[in-house]
Amino acid sequence: MALTVGLRPLTRALLRPWARVPGAALGRPAAGSGDGVRCFGSPRVLVEPDPAAGVAVMKMRNPPVNSLSLEFLTELLISLEKLENDKTFRGIIITSDCPGIFSAGLDLLEMYGRDPAHCAEYWKAVQELWLRVYLSNLVVIGAINGISPAGGCLLSLSCDYRVLANNPKYAIGLNETLLGIIAPFWFKDVLVNTIGHRAAERALQLGFLFPPSDALQVGIVDQVVPEDQVQSTARSVMAQWLAIPDHARQLTKNLVRKPTADRLLQQRDADIQNFVRFISRDSIQKSLHVYLEKLKQKKG
Amino acid sequence: MALTVGLRPLTRALLRPWARVPGAALGRPAAGSGDGVRCFGSPRVLVEPDPAAGVAVMKMRNPPVNSLSLEFLTELLISLEKLENDKTFRGIIITSDCPGIFSAGLDLLEMYGRDPAHCAEYWKAVQELWLRVYLSNLVVIGAINGISPAGGCLLSLSCDYRVLANNPKYAIGLNETLLGIIAPFWFKDVLVNTIGHRAAERALQLGFLFPPSDALQVGIVDQVVPEDQVQSTARSVMAQWLAIPDHARQLTKNLVRKPTADRLLQQRDADIQNFVRFISRDSIQKSLHVYLEKLKQKKG
Amino acid sequence: MALTVGLRPLTRALLRPWARVPGAALGRPAAGSGDGVRCFGSPRVLVEPDPAAGVAVMKMRNPPVNSLSLEFLTELLISLEKLENDKTFRGIIITSDCPGIFSAGLDLLEMYGRDPAHCAEYWKAVQELWLRVYLSNLVVIGAINGISPAGGCLLSLSCDYRVLANNPKYAIGLNETLLGIIAPFWFKDVLVNTIGHRAAERALQLGFLFPPSDALQVGIVDQVVPEDQVQSTARSVMAQWLAIPDHARQLTKNLVRKPTADRLLQQRDADIQNFVRFISRDSIQKSLHVYLEKLKQKKG
Repeated sequence: MALTVGLRPLTRALLRPWARVPGAALGRPAAGSGDGVRCFGSPRVLVEPDPAAGVAVMKMRNPPVNSLSLEFLTELLISLEKLENDKTFRGIIITSDCPGIFSAGLDLLEMYGRDPAHCAEYWKAVQELWLRVYLSNLVVIGAINGISPAGGCLLSLSCDYRVLANNPKYAIGLNETLLGIIAPFWFKDVLVNTIGHRAAERALQLGFLFPPSDALQVGIVDQVVPEDQVQSTARSVMAQWLAIPDHARQLTKNLVRKPTADRLLQQRDADIQNFVRFISRDSIQKSLHVYLEKLKQKKG
Repeated sequence: MALTVGLRPLTRALLRPWARVPGAALGRPAAGSGDGVRCFGSPRVLVEPDPAAGVAVMKMRNPPVNSLSLEFLTELLISLEKLENDKTFRGIIITSDCPGIFSAGLDLLEMYGRDPAHCAEYWKAVQELWLRVYLSNLVVIGAINGISPAGGCLLSLSCDYRVLANNPKYAIGLNETLLGIIAPFWFKDVLVNTIGHRAAERALQLGFLFPPSDALQVGIVDQVVPEDQVQSTARSVMAQWLAIPDHARQLTKNLVRKPTADRLLQQRDADIQNFVRFISRDSIQKSLHVYLEKLKQKKG
Repeated sequence: MALTVGLRPLTRALLRPWARVPGAALGRPAAGSGDGVRCFGSPRVLVEPDPAAGVAVMKMRNPPVNSLSLEFLTELLISLEKLENDKTFRGIIITSDCPGIFSAGLDLLEMYGRDPAHCAEYWKAVQELWLRVYLSNLVVIGAINGISPAGGCLLSLSCDYRVLANNPKYAIGLNETLLGIIAPFWFKDVLVNTIGHRAAERALQLGFLFPPSDALQVGIVDQVVPEDQVQSTARSVMAQWLAIPDHARQLTKNLVRKPTADRLLQQRDADIQNFVRFISRDSIQKSLHVYLEKLKQKKG
């Protein structure tokens, strides 16, 4: 079955068992490699392939806010892995199918009131998504069509290029401190790489969510365009990136990004343990409780 | 006595003996922690506490130019330590009580014609001030109301945010090369962190002192305001920083700044020895002599 | 003979034998150090000394495009070494004597169809040129009067200051990916140092050649001036740099640049082997073949 092709051990481990994504295999099974349109995707990740262009659009659909739950992360990883292993595709565009929100980031319900083993499994999946996107051999363009805080911002920052819709509500940033939590060092590293040390230092401490004009000025996104042109702009930018020979571009991307990824790779387990220890603290669980109650009241 | 509460060994070592700051305990002794207004301060460091806001203003008064002499450094360290150890305070504003000058930086008289032991003690205090300000758990805002060269610039760069008075005479920068001396690696690291590698490389070699408009453009300060609004702006900015939960902000600040501080912490003694060796050279002592003579003639 | 004065072992090794630069000693042999005008230079490197100012202009003349062939690199290294060892000179201006081109960069003919030993010798010379220019005790100003791709850009980036002629044809950048090859890590490091991580990441992958206005904006050059003012501007800038005491400026330059140079110095041989292995691949030789054929057709 197409879904299982090329899955690496880690992704398999994250699924454990497959049944966790029961409806994941919505698409037609592929008859083989290179035979035209393939239907990828899963309940939460719509993949619209354009084999002629070598491009696939990955639409995140985990309503209401594309929270990066363990299941959703797992589906994203599977989709990414399939696209990476399919020679048809040279680039992907990541965008949202949920109106007004790109992704709200990590799912607090995966860390609130959960046992350490679950938190560890979850954090491993978060790490994996970052490493997969940040080091992807594919060109990855973010078509950011909604607000993009915290983990949603990290996902954006891990793309090769970011196009943000010019809607003042669509702020982007690592706003962890506002929730009383801390961005991990690799979130910080990626932000420093993108907007520089000083801007990152200030933005991280103050939990800045940059509206489009500020986002462009500080460099946390590369381009701001009218909302109805986000997808078409992402496609044009993609064409520019695909004009470069894959091999040279991939090696160059690796040259630039590997040292940052290596900092996590060299201490993945310690980073997981740190996360579990931190999130298990009473004070942090309490902060999460307060925040989740506020969210409930907002909805109610 | 309030002054001795919570002093860490290093600061004690720097004082050795206490008598060095004979008039340091000007304030009323505090009756205990959290019991309202405390009077800190020393002859050279005026502390104006605003307990309601959780903010203290530290005014440097070491006329004529707030040279960072060993005594003055020691008083600054004591005041910082006291404020850090007093739960009343969450932020401090560092500013000058000397008209037209924030701080002229290191006191050349502490390195000219002095024996190695004195130079070593002095350098340790310089390191300590930087580490204390740069890693402070308090929010530290610089209200830069005067020229701020060399060590004065370092002090500014170590704050969390810099507000500079818009007076063309109030230049700021690491201008050590103009004196024939070299900024230590950690001065360089902090400048690179703040304005980027290329701008720092050029500014350090040419000993740039940036007037306000250039300072803002290159990013060595965060904001330039009319001279009579420096203090009020610093207070508004402080409110913005204090809106963030302390714990999350402090851990995030540490996440961003610790690696830079660690570079010095891992080689503090070697750095002291380097300084002593460098400053003891005949050629450097001669440069200092020439410069100090020039200063005398200016005054004369 | 003037030419042999002060040559370090490596440069000698690169020459092996001297006969490689048969006409190198065009100038009058110097009668001694400090005795007025000296005539340096070689067939491909014109040196115009201005002893009164302490400045020499080095004009690259390896027509048609100042390709950095092994012979040309060797002559550049000899000229640099002579100027560095002559107390008369405190600064050099590097510029081109070939109309419209600063330098086309590395000479592909030194890596296409060559045996590994030759490729290794060539790469060692490329490394040496970079280290020599990047860490030079002299002030090095680039008067970039023509297009400056790939290795030509690296040479520019290794200067202390870059003045680019305002001609839309005179683009500058590390465009290796366009040729299907990869910039080495130290090219990348120097670009990151100059324009920041994010801009470098994008420029390197897309092989950007920045026209003057973009070059100035991204910071890959420091100044853009009308074409007929490039040399005079370089001279004015030089005066500014020479106003700084040499000793302090040199130590500060070293402080800022040594860590970057050390990354190569710590693995020079491995870097040579990497290059030889990479360039010897069939796929890369094929890419070079295609590119060289295109160049031939253009000329034909």
